[in-house]
Amino acid sequence: MKPVTFGIIGAGRIGKLHADNLLSKVAGARLKAITDPFLDEDWAASRNIQLIGKDHRILLDDPEIDAILIGSPSGEHAAQMIECAQAGKHIFCEKPIALDPEIIRNALAEVDKSGVKLQVGFNRRFDPNFSSVQHQVVSGALGAPHIIRITSRDPSPPPVEYVVGSGGMFMDMTIHDFDMARFLSGSEVSEVHAYGAVLVDPEIGKAGDIDTTVISLKFANGALGIIENSRKAVYGYDQRVEVFGAKGTAMADNNTPTSMIVLNESGTIRDKPLYFFLERYKTAFVSEMLAFVDAIREDKQTLVSGKDGLVPVLIAMAAKESLKTGKPVQVVSV
Amino acid sequence: MKPVTFGIIGAGRIGKLHADNLLSKVAGARLKAITDPFLDEDWAASRNIQLIGKDHRILLDDPEIDAILIGSPSGEHAAQMIECAQAGKHIFCEKPIALDPEIIRNALAEVDKSGVKLQVGFNRRFDPNFSSVQHQVVSGALGAPHIIRITSRDPSPPPVEYVVGSGGMFMDMTIHDFDMARFLSGSEVSEVHAYGAVLVDPEIGKAGDIDTTVISLKFANGALGIIENSRKAVYGYDQRVEVFGAKGTAMADNNTPTSMIVLNESGTIRDKPLYFFLERYKTAFVSEMLAFVDAIREDKQTLVSGKDGLVPVLIAMAAKESLKTGKPVQVVSV
Amino acid sequence: MKPVTFGIIGAGRIGKLHADNLLSKVAGARLKAITDPFLDEDWAASRNIQLIGKDHRILLDDPEIDAILIGSPSGEHAAQMIECAQAGKHIFCEKPIALDPEIIRNALAEVDKSGVKLQVGFNRRFDPNFSSVQHQVVSGALGAPHIIRITSRDPSPPPVEYVVGSGGMFMDMTIHDFDMARFLSGSEVSEVHAYGAVLVDPEIGKAGDIDTTVISLKFANGALGIIENSRKAVYGYDQRVEVFGAKGTAMADNNTPTSMIVLNESGTIRDKPLYFFLERYKTAFVSEMLAFVDAIREDKQTLVSGKDGLVPVLIAMAAKESLKTGKPVQVVSV
Amino acid sequence: MKPVTFGIIGAGRIGKLHADNLLSKVAGARLKAITDPFLDEDWAASRNIQLIGKDHRILLDDPEIDAILIGSPSGEHAAQMIECAQAGKHIFCEKPIALDPEIIRNALAEVDKSGVKLQVGFNRRFDPNFSSVQHQVVSGALGAPHIIRITSRDPSPPPVEYVVGSGGMFMDMTIHDFDMARFLSGSEVSEVHAYGAVLVDPEIGKAGDIDTTVISLKFANGALGIIENSRKAVYGYDQRVEVFGAKGTAMADNNTPTSMIVLNESGTIRDKPLYFFLERYKTAFVSEMLAFVDAIREDKQTLVSGKDGLVPVLIAMAAKESLKTGKPVQVVSV
Repeated sequence: MKPVTFGIIGAGRIGKLHADNLLSKVAGARLKAITDPFLDEDWAASRNIQLIGKDHRILLDDPEIDAILIGSPSGEHAAQMIECAQAGKHIFCEKPIALDPEIIRNALAEVDKSGVKLQVGFNRRFDPNFSSVQHQVVSGALGAPHIIRITSRDPSPPPVEYVVGSGGMFMDMTIHDFDMARFLSGSEVSEVHAYGAVLVDPEIGKAGDIDTTVISLKFANGALGIIENSRKAVYGYDQRVEVFGAKGTAMADNNTPTSMIVLNESGTIRDKPLYFFLERYKTAFVSEMLAFVDAIREDKQTLVSGKDGLVPVLIAMAAKESLKTGKPVQVVSV
Repeated sequence: MKPVTFGIIGAGRIGKLHADNLLSKVAGARLKAITDPFLDEDWAASRNIQLIGKDHRILLDDPEIDAILIGSPSGEHAAQMIECAQAGKHIFCEKPIALDPEIIRNALAEVDKSGVKLQVGFNRRFDPNFSSVQHQVVSGALGAPHIIRITSRDPSPPPVEYVVGSGGMFMDMTIHDFDMARFLSGSEVSEVHAYGAVLVDPEIGKAGDIDTTVISLKFANGALGIIENSRKAVYGYDQRVEVFGAKGTAMADNNTPTSMIVLNESGTIRDKPLYFFLERYKTAFVSEMLAFVDAIREDKQTLVSGKDGLVPVLIAMAAKESLKTGKPVQVVSV
Repeated sequence: MKPVTFGIIGAGRIGKLHADNLLSKVAGARLKAITDPFLDEDWAASRNIQLIGKDHRILLDDPEIDAILIGSPSGEHAAQMIECAQAGKHIFCEKPIALDPEIIRNALAEVDKSGVKLQVGFNRRFDPNFSSVQHQVVSGALGAPHIIRITSRDPSPPPVEYVVGSGGMFMDMTIHDFDMARFLSGSEVSEVHAYGAVLVDPEIGKAGDIDTTVISLKFANGALGIIENSRKAVYGYDQRVEVFGAKGTAMADNNTPTSMIVLNESGTIRDKPLYFFLERYKTAFVSEMLAFVDAIREDKQTLVSGKDGLVPVLIAMAAKESLKTGKPVQVVSV
Repeated sequence: MKPVTFGIIGAGRIGKLHADNLLSKVAGARLKAITDPFLDEDWAASRNIQLIGKDHRILLDDPEIDAILIGSPSGEHAAQMIECAQAGKHIFCEKPIALDPEIIRNALAEVDKSGVKLQVGFNRRFDPNFSSVQHQVVSGALGAPHIIRITSRDPSPPPVEYVVGSGGMFMDMTIHDFDMARFLSGSEVSEVHAYGAVLVDPEIGKAGDIDTTVISLKFANGALGIIENSRKAVYGYDQRVEVFGAKGTAMADNNTPTSMIVLNESGTIRDKPLYFFLERYKTAFVSEMLAFVDAIREDKQTLVSGKDGLVPVLIAMAAKESLKTGKPVQVVSV
């Protein structure tokens, strides 16, 4: 079967990571082109990438390119998504599509009209630990889900300037957990209640955001949920989930660099969790791309749809309002 | 040093358990007497207990008895506590003291007036796993606490009749977790928000109670908390806690009957958690009694005070109101 | 059913431990008497033990006593066993019966003649971890056993004087592992090869013994085995076993004081294994006594027979010879 | 710095794996050419490999090629090693160099004479788990090593024909463990004693080999060691090591596909170990190549020398003799 030929918009950290995966780890994919206004040309040369440029429109115009990966700054995602759809290119778009639901809805409408495939970059769904838990749910092995628990703690807080532009903690960090809650429960979040606190960095508080949160969730299927986040876990990147159901519970723990255990006079000692998200989700970044290629080649629905890109933003907005009003808030439906 | 001589009111399951501990496992204690309106006299004879009877007042009148353990039905606790205090006997009282805070306050006032020691039976504080976590907090090893997590799931639901009389899930089950939250955080719960659901047994719902809950907590020291409960975990009694703080996190996992691991074609298999709370908290029941005896002999404050018996009831009431109103509710101060 | 009435010979550390178990933890048993040439009378009084004395013959003469626990110095075991048998008392004898197989054979012959029950104190068979592994073997869940592995490391070496009188490492320490090898494999050891070294304490070497060993075993059923011992593991008492078979493997790990896990900047930290053998095998000491009482009351074979007391001594002798000659040595059959 | 340009001899499973690693995962390396008498040309084309052919001598003649990876059938290794050395190419040679020590010595002499770098493919030294354990030894954190334990069990036995040509279990399987023993102990094996059995497949026995073994080791530094192997572990590829020393012990456990834990009515269940060695040692295959490239570019000694390729063969020969004679056998020195 003919490989899917890719172009990438954006050659920052995430664009380069996807490029390397498409070059050597994603069977059925071929990377032809990459664009970035500030392209690192040495890097591109070392990868033998055939077509490079500053302007992403060269990708739209290239008839050989089947699919475009949007890895540009997030403010540009929605507009580029529309351009890609209009050019008839399949789209893999990093999250978030946009911070404003109207902008997202508008872009999704264009995608729908065009008939191209769209997959949103909620990579954690493809993490082997989390997807195994979700398989337990889907297979029925756990029975009806009763309680969903998600722990997500970053190793260190972002710069305050980032927080200002990102839409805040719920929009740049918890958004992954809102997606995970939907993914694991197989249901929609109907209502949220959020407590927040500034315990890590007072500057974040001054900028109007929080750095620690505990969020309760009600799901349409009757299950209850909990998300808890911190911007700073000194021991590394802490990513755990649990689905408790009528027939049992399934938990995913962190990954560690090695399996070594040392016993000495001070205790029994193991590695800390992996520190860096690129390391933690290394496999997931490859697997999401394999799934996208598979959806294109087999003409199937992608595993992370446009709706999946929109709904977590709506949940984040409800959580923000709950934090502001001190009351539970219903999530707006799509 | 002279041993502390005990009498026990109530020879049901919990009274007998305390009797056996006092007879052989609690250094510094001596069990002299036990009373119960329906006393199992064969059992008492097999233990060589010197003084037995139906009426607990024989304990109050015995000058040799230093301390009385109240293990009667919980509706009798408060009145008996007052009698013991007036008789100048130190008191170990099983929880709850009462369901009505006014009754508790009244009993505590009598205890205060009398100057006797009072310890309330929140045994889980003495579980080695949980007390180790609390030591990490108290020692400062974790830094300021940011997030407290408590998972508490029973292996099977009580009969519906029990639920009707017990004050409901928050009062008979979560009450332990409210105590644990205060114990682990070293702070007071200022506000709670509760979601509840009937997912285990519809009969419980018909009786006006819930069987699954997710409760968010705000603490006076700024930390946030989560409690989640289910009346039924098919894999056994699930009792875990975590305190996440500025310098690290400490987690206590379940206990299992053995350390055996089997690897075969179907996976890597270990024991389920211990199923029964008497087994799970076996050590804790002995340790709480050792601590009580120590407090008496050394004339120190007990480790679970009268206030510690009152406050969880106040939190449970706030949680009930939150569930009813759908809004967060502030906890009444003592 | 009438309880089994016990007398104990020897009120040292192990005699007192068994006394406390018989007093409160062993259903169906009653402790009437204890003797010791240097009896701690205060201790005996605190336990309300009815009959005490210096000379063990008062136990032989007491018609009420059904069973005698021999917990005297090991040089006296065989002679006392004969006296007990001749007095018609059931016998629980601490290991070793003797260091000389002829003396053991002679004592066992007397026991056989008398028809009393005999159980030897190989308590580790009753440890929940190890007995669960053995159940896996017996149930057939592991298929035919292929490799038996036993790790046994003491937290600290005994005084050199002890080593001199004990018969050496194989006789005082590895003897438990030789028993475990037979227990886990369900077969007899036919041949052993031993490497030994002095790596812990040169004084032990000067006294003619070793402190570190690696022993290979051949079993009659075709399986192979490994025992490794050290006199000193700085992290505590290390007691692990594994049975690997055609259908899987079962491993028993160490026990720890708590289940707490701490994650901080320096790693993931858990407790060390329990340090002290009395703590590690606390449950086993109770269970072996329950089993002995059960064998008497139900007139069944005991779970650790006289032969089970003899054979490990024969294996230890073969191991000693292998160490001396540098060659594998066949184990003498019973 | 100029990349190291590679040619590969042999495009079987292992050659292709190294090719893919050199193409995308080994910074500082460039793959120019590959040869195989039965080259899969489609595969080579899909990788854009510049120079391909049937005869490995085209690699020797290409002045641009700095280093040659020998991944041909093992009977050809020694002769090709000599050719590479004479052509002045650095050599990465898969193990074993040969089964006959004289042939190995002869090849190593040529390599020495030429001055090229040689690294032998004992990839397990580069596994993160095992190399972490070795770092504990080298750092002194464990004190002097006392006992080295190596468990190595294959998921399923090779075809009988393979065993006949491979030199047998010690030469094709245990050889990795002999290398690991030297690596972990930081010392030489002076003597071995081997027990062997045919418990997995009687056909292997008929072919004159064994499928289960327990091998004791004496090291020059006084430590003792154990290796145990089975040709068939139904639960997957079982690769564990432990180094026990004066200051503690370090253990490396197996890797599993996910961290998920499921608790249900039948127990607590986790994944089996990874089944396939290519998956288990995925990282190690990359790391050994990074180390080789580093040794070339920095003109350092390689981390697996020619001697490291020879000595395990000498140990395997001693083990074979021990199995035949039933006695411990001293290892011939290099």
